[in-house]
Amino acid sequence: VAKTIGRLFGVGTGPGDPELVTRKAWRVVSEADVVAYPAPDHGTSFSRQIMADAISPDAIELPIIIPMISGRAPAQAIYDEAAEQILAYLNAGHDVAVLCEGDPLFYGSFMYLLARLRDDVAVEMIPGVSSLVASASAALRPLAARSDILTVLAAPLSDDKLEAAIHGAEAVAIIKLGRHLDRMRALIRRLGLMDQAIYIGHASLPHQKVMPLGEAPDDAPYFSMILLYKGSDPWIN
Amino acid sequence: VAKTIGRLFGVGTGPGDPELVTRKAWRVVSEADVVAYPAPDHGTSFSRQIMADAISPDAIELPIIIPMISGRAPAQAIYDEAAEQILAYLNAGHDVAVLCEGDPLFYGSFMYLLARLRDDVAVEMIPGVSSLVASASAALRPLAARSDILTVLAAPLSDDKLEAAIHGAEAVAIIKLGRHLDRMRALIRRLGLMDQAIYIGHASLPHQKVMPLGEAPDDAPYFSMILLYKGSDPWIN
Repeated sequence: VAKTIGRLFGVGTGPGDPELVTRKAWRVVSEADVVAYPAPDHGTSFSRQIMADAISPDAIELPIIIPMISGRAPAQAIYDEAAEQILAYLNAGHDVAVLCEGDPLFYGSFMYLLARLRDDVAVEMIPGVSSLVASASAALRPLAARSDILTVLAAPLSDDKLEAAIHGAEAVAIIKLGRHLDRMRALIRRLGLMDQAIYIGHASLPHQKVMPLGEAPDDAPYFSMILLYKGSDPWIN
Repeated sequence: VAKTIGRLFGVGTGPGDPELVTRKAWRVVSEADVVAYPAPDHGTSFSRQIMADAISPDAIELPIIIPMISGRAPAQAIYDEAAEQILAYLNAGHDVAVLCEGDPLFYGSFMYLLARLRDDVAVEMIPGVSSLVASASAALRPLAARSDILTVLAAPLSDDKLEAAIHGAEAVAIIKLGRHLDRMRALIRRLGLMDQAIYIGHASLPHQKVMPLGEAPDDAPYFSMILLYKGSDPWIN
């Protein structure tokens, strides 16, 4: 199958600090003819904010407006339309960079565009620093060691599912906290693991928060997670 | 407690491509007075190779020689000695950057130095692009989506442990393949998951390999992994 002339780049922008962007992501975005990024219906796009100093003044910007409807995945029609717009630019020979917070393929929405475009388009992925490793750095604590089982869980899962998964792992990250923080805290308390649980919010940003889960704010932002370590390695203190 | 004047940086160098180093890691390493890195007893240090063009000609280089004894963790005495050497430089007011392949806290040996130094030293972590997300980018496939459970497993674990963990997850990464590849392949075949398993070797490097697990080479390098996706999301094809 003939692919488009323009190239599509899926670009990880890292966790927030513009210095935690890779050299490749910075170069590719600064050279891109078109820069697309998810944006809320009100307010600024986080990934665009991270890359603001890299985007060329000559670039065409293409915000993909994702309405913030709590607890619901955005309508697939939004990605249909964005994919069509991007394809038009690629067919016209333009290179398009799509900005993705953290890493594009770690629980990211880039997959919706990838699924629609990968058969027709030359795609190059640029992996990024994920919130997972950025949070471990913020907490100054290993995520996992040696042959530890490391499991990533999304807070919207049921308590039963979460408990079973936590039971089977030595190291656990709970992402997508938001309004689920209270329930997560109750669950972890019930499991007797509060002393091993750390809350990290806005890793790598000036307003980063790192604290024992027991002291975490009641209202967790979307960009926060819990790291839990059940192992007994000598590096834990 | 008074901390040292010199600062210790734990620096993630990413999966191999020098362009997949963060801007911060590049800057910090280029400014460091001392650059330390793990090195094999014969041959070159991978993390040093990645950062070769960033290291200042004036920097003091401190290789931490890790003898390659198959299947055994290196003697803790090596880290005792390295920590002492690093501490001496920090006490003399030098900044020391320790290079770590991928991310320093994702199954990395940096934790052994961190455990020895964190109480006496000003430490700053610089997270990096992990092999996990780099491999997903190489495979052009999401690691995990929405509320998928993602589990990272080390190939040296027993078949029973691996099977239980694979059973409880939608997305699985099996790391530290090496000589365990054959056993992993037999296990995944027995679980009927061969069609969903991809082998990735040397992600992001010129000699990167991406192929169905069934076609993987018999002898997997240390820097390789299997990605397994059991979910049925629309983005899989």
